[in-house]
Amino acid sequence: MKYCFGVDIGGTTVKMGLFTTVGELIHKWEIKTRTENGGEAILPDISRAIFDKMKERGLEREDIVGVGVGIPAPVNAEGIVKNTANLGWGYKEVVKELSELLGGMKVAAGNDANVAALGEMWLGAGHGEKNMIMVTLGTGVGGGVIVDGKILIGANGAGGEIGHICVNYNEEDCCGCGNKGCLEQYASATGIARLARIRLKKNDDLTVLREHKFINAKVVFDAVKENDKVAIEVAEEFGRYLGHALANLAVVADPSVIVIGGGVSKAGEVLIPFVEKPFHEKAFFANQETRFVLATLENDAGICGAAKLII
Amino acid sequence: MKYCFGVDIGGTTVKMGLFTTVGELIHKWEIKTRTENGGEAILPDISRAIFDKMKERGLEREDIVGVGVGIPAPVNAEGIVKNTANLGWGYKEVVKELSELLGGMKVAAGNDANVAALGEMWLGAGHGEKNMIMVTLGTGVGGGVIVDGKILIGANGAGGEIGHICVNYNEEDCCGCGNKGCLEQYASATGIARLARIRLKKNDDLTVLREHKFINAKVVFDAVKENDKVAIEVAEEFGRYLGHALANLAVVADPSVIVIGGGVSKAGEVLIPFVEKPFHEKAFFANQETRFVLATLENDAGICGAAKLII
Repeated sequence: MKYCFGVDIGGTTVKMGLFTTVGELIHKWEIKTRTENGGEAILPDISRAIFDKMKERGLEREDIVGVGVGIPAPVNAEGIVKNTANLGWGYKEVVKELSELLGGMKVAAGNDANVAALGEMWLGAGHGEKNMIMVTLGTGVGGGVIVDGKILIGANGAGGEIGHICVNYNEEDCCGCGNKGCLEQYASATGIARLARIRLKKNDDLTVLREHKFINAKVVFDAVKENDKVAIEVAEEFGRYLGHALANLAVVADPSVIVIGGGVSKAGEVLIPFVEKPFHEKAFFANQETRFVLATLENDAGICGAAKLII
Repeated sequence: MKYCFGVDIGGTTVKMGLFTTVGELIHKWEIKTRTENGGEAILPDISRAIFDKMKERGLEREDIVGVGVGIPAPVNAEGIVKNTANLGWGYKEVVKELSELLGGMKVAAGNDANVAALGEMWLGAGHGEKNMIMVTLGTGVGGGVIVDGKILIGANGAGGEIGHICVNYNEEDCCGCGNKGCLEQYASATGIARLARIRLKKNDDLTVLREHKFINAKVVFDAVKENDKVAIEVAEEFGRYLGHALANLAVVADPSVIVIGGGVSKAGEVLIPFVEKPFHEKAFFANQETRFVLATLENDAGICGAAKLII
């Protein structure tokens, strides 16, 4: 039996997993992400954790196929990062450095959202598929496009930035990226809350949403489940932006399946028709068979996809 | 020296090219596309033409690496076509059938627009790049997305259908595909002529466009070169639709270069700024370095990309 490690670097913790090369998650654990001093300890900490785990499990160097890493930043095809928002790293040759720390072990790296998509393809909701789009609806909107079983990395390692597709050329509020009208402004958790607040100001019709001091995506979809008319309107607006954006993406990427993940997807199956209906209304005829499913791996998607990077 | 053939099947003629595997086009010629009787003669005609050319050039079976084919229809990763609009074929296992006709020679097949994009990457405007978008502005708008040096084929062989990205949700006229607001309705040769006709009806201000009984894309861009105000407005509208669509595509495909080809691109360099400016206004910060260039291979893009399919 051969093994590999999947590593998902976040701003607070590094998630780690030991896998068999046939896709069994044997063991998972976390270490702290030490971002001080330009994040200089992050890779040495990971390498130490891997050696410790190998010792603990009685694994030899020749049992390990390699180590895959997901990073919260664009990562190019050579495993190089140019900058990170929350790890302290500037330019860093991640694959080269970590491989050296691991005594020449094979290392691969990718963007964390892209890697999570690969994880869902390998062991999650996209299992058995080779052409897939994953959209992650969290604080922001992230995603990954899988083409013929591989991550669409792009020239700058910035492939699959679905959240910054412009879906409204008349928007006046700014997105975090500096542009206006990005999908993220309507389909993220914060975007849905924003749509709800705007809707509540429009008139004073009755809705359970007004009973909440703080409106978030969960409040909106809980109200949808109670058949609240205003909440349904908000969900329809969210779904129209997301469904139309995915239809435009599908005409180019031609996926067999679209996986919806992230915190917002915890609303469950109730979410799907709001996205699927406008998708089918606008999708190209060749993409009408595309299926919508919810992500299944939750927080393990990152370590799973990272492990798959090197298999 | 090893050789290969690139074959570009069109509705009227089949273009054929003999290449060295290092990318030299040795010889090109055409045969008629015989579409009668369900197009049953097309593949046998191609196979005969290849054997004849090998004999003529004194090439042996072991000198030939294989034959690549571009087809005007979606072609899946297994080289299977489900239907064609103008070849007479229904379901056809093109790769398997042609390989059998060629005595087991290696055959690969792809969609013609995608294959043309691959050709421009190999020997044309995208030479040296591995992540590229090509958009072909002809009677319709076609295209191809190259990811890490390979065609984005997709689950149904319908990847890269750039012309059917929806760019105007308020459009009332129908696209040929049945949807409304497709890029093709604004950025194809016919789309540009349509924009011009709509603009001319708006008011009766002076423009050289009124001197033409029949307005086409060439007339519009010729007038742009003469600094005609109304023609410039039409070109700006065309460029805004195309530039914004390409910005939305770039945020996902992250190309280093965007190649503009097809009949409309014969307008020349004058075209580029009309597309580039709105692209940069809306592009994600990671895609601001993307370059715009005109295609260089013209009608040879198809045979070049077809040959590259098997190398």
